[in-house]
Amino acid sequence: MPTPTAALLIIGNEILSGRTQDLNVQFIAQHLSALGINLKEVRIIPDEEQVIIDTVRILSAQYTTVFTTGGIGATHDDITAASIAKAFDQKLILHEGAMEILSAYYGDRLNEARTRMALMPEGAQLITNPISAAPGFKIGNVFCMAGIPSVMQRMFDHIIPELPTGPQFFSQTIHCSILENNLADALAEIQKRYSSLDIGSYPKYNPTGAYTLSLVIRGIDPDLIHGAGQEILDLIRQHGEEAAVE
Amino acid sequence: MPTPTAALLIIGNEILSGRTQDLNVQFIAQHLSALGINLKEVRIIPDEEQVIIDTVRILSAQYTTVFTTGGIGATHDDITAASIAKAFDQKLILHEGAMEILSAYYGDRLNEARTRMALMPEGAQLITNPISAAPGFKIGNVFCMAGIPSVMQRMFDHIIPELPTGPQFFSQTIHCSILENNLADALAEIQKRYSSLDIGSYPKYNPTGAYTLSLVIRGIDPDLIHGAGQEILDLIRQHGEEAAVE
Repeated sequence: MPTPTAALLIIGNEILSGRTQDLNVQFIAQHLSALGINLKEVRIIPDEEQVIIDTVRILSAQYTTVFTTGGIGATHDDITAASIAKAFDQKLILHEGAMEILSAYYGDRLNEARTRMALMPEGAQLITNPISAAPGFKIGNVFCMAGIPSVMQRMFDHIIPELPTGPQFFSQTIHCSILENNLADALAEIQKRYSSLDIGSYPKYNPTGAYTLSLVIRGIDPDLIHGAGQEILDLIRQHGEEAAVE
Repeated sequence: MPTPTAALLIIGNEILSGRTQDLNVQFIAQHLSALGINLKEVRIIPDEEQVIIDTVRILSAQYTTVFTTGGIGATHDDITAASIAKAFDQKLILHEGAMEILSAYYGDRLNEARTRMALMPEGAQLITNPISAAPGFKIGNVFCMAGIPSVMQRMFDHIIPELPTGPQFFSQTIHCSILENNLADALAEIQKRYSSLDIGSYPKYNPTGAYTLSLVIRGIDPDLIHGAGQEILDLIRQHGEEAAVE
C-alpha cells in the first residue's frame, strides 16, 4: 500500500502579517499522520488571485491530496473559490446545493453578499459546515475549507471518510537530559541501520533555562520502532543518564 | 522607498508530523511587519536535502531576503548547512570563527559531533547565538537560524540591524459583532476607494459560540488608514451596532 501524500495551503494575509497565530497546520498535520497520509509541505500565501492559482496548480499536480484553508467567506478579501475555479479552468457558478443550505440557514436574511458564499467552481462537491452553514468544497484533489480553526476542524471531520489512507504511522518519543551532540554519532549509526525509520532529535530549553532532549522515532513498523527505541535507551543508560518513554 | 520582500522557510519534520506547534512564523511575521518588510510566503518542508536545495534556490531568487529556521544542530537530521552550501554551489567548510565560539563554550568537551556545528557554506557570516553558543549563519540573502523558538528569537534580535527596511506598516483593527456578510458590499466599496490599503475581515467564534468580527486596515499611510477606519465605523453605526477600535 503506497503512502498517499498531501500539501496544505494556508491562504491568509492575517498569518503573513503576524496578526494571527496559525492553529490549522498542527491540527491537520496530526490528523493526516493518524490517517497514514504523508504531509510533504505547507505553504502560507497572501489573498492574491494569481498566487493562489499558480500555487494550487503546482501542489495539485504534485501530491495525492491538497487542503486549503481560508478565504471562503462573503467579503471582498475572500477570493479562494474564484481563484481555484480559474486554477482548474472551470466557471464560477452558483452551486444549487449550497444555495439550499444558505436559504435554510438564513431564510429571509439571505442577501446578495451571503449568496456569494454559494459561488463555487463548476463541478465542485460540498463540504459540510455544521458551525456556520456556508459550505467548503472539493474540486479535483483539492479540499477547500474555512480558515477559522473551529469551523475548519468540523469540516475536516466530515471529509475524513473521503480521504485516501496509507499504512498508519507509529512513533515513540524518548525524553532525557543529555546534550544532543553527546549522542550525535551513535544516533547517526542507529539511523543508518534503521533506514526505514525517521529518527529526530529535538532539544528544548524551557523558560527557566532547563534543558530536555526528545528523541522521536517514527515509521510504519512498530517492531522496528521498538528495536530502535531499545538501542537508544541503552545508549542513554551507557551515558549514566535516565530516560522516559512516551 | 520600495518595500523589501521576504520568505520564511521552516525546515522540520516535527512540524509536518504535527508533533510540534510552530511558533516561529508569527514571531518573524510580526517583526518583519514592524521593519516594513513584506513577508510574501512561508513554506514548511521536511529535512530532505534536495527539497531544501530546490526551495532555497527558488525563494532566494524571488525575494529580497529569506529566513530559514531549523536543522542547524549536531545530529544526523541537521542537514540545513550542508544543503544550503549546495544550493549556493559552495563548499561546506569548518568555519574558523564558529570553531572559536564552540571552543570557548565547550572547552575540553568539544567533541567531533559538536565540531560539526561549525561546518558552514564557504563565505558564510555568523549569526550570534547567546543561548547555546552554536551560531547560525548568513549566505547570500539567506539567514539560517535555529528552530528552537527561544534560540531563534535571540538570533533574530542580532540580525535586525542587517536587514533592509521599508516604509513602516500601520494598522487599525475595528471590533464589532455584525455578521460579516451584512457589511460585505459596503466594505468592498471602501476597499475599492482605498486601493493602497489592505482591508481584511476576520470573523471569529469563541468556544462559547459567541461571534465577533475584526476588521483590519493595514498600509503605510496612517492618514488613509484613519480615513478608511472612520468610514467603517460610520458603516457599523448605520447598522445600529457598536464598535471598538484597537
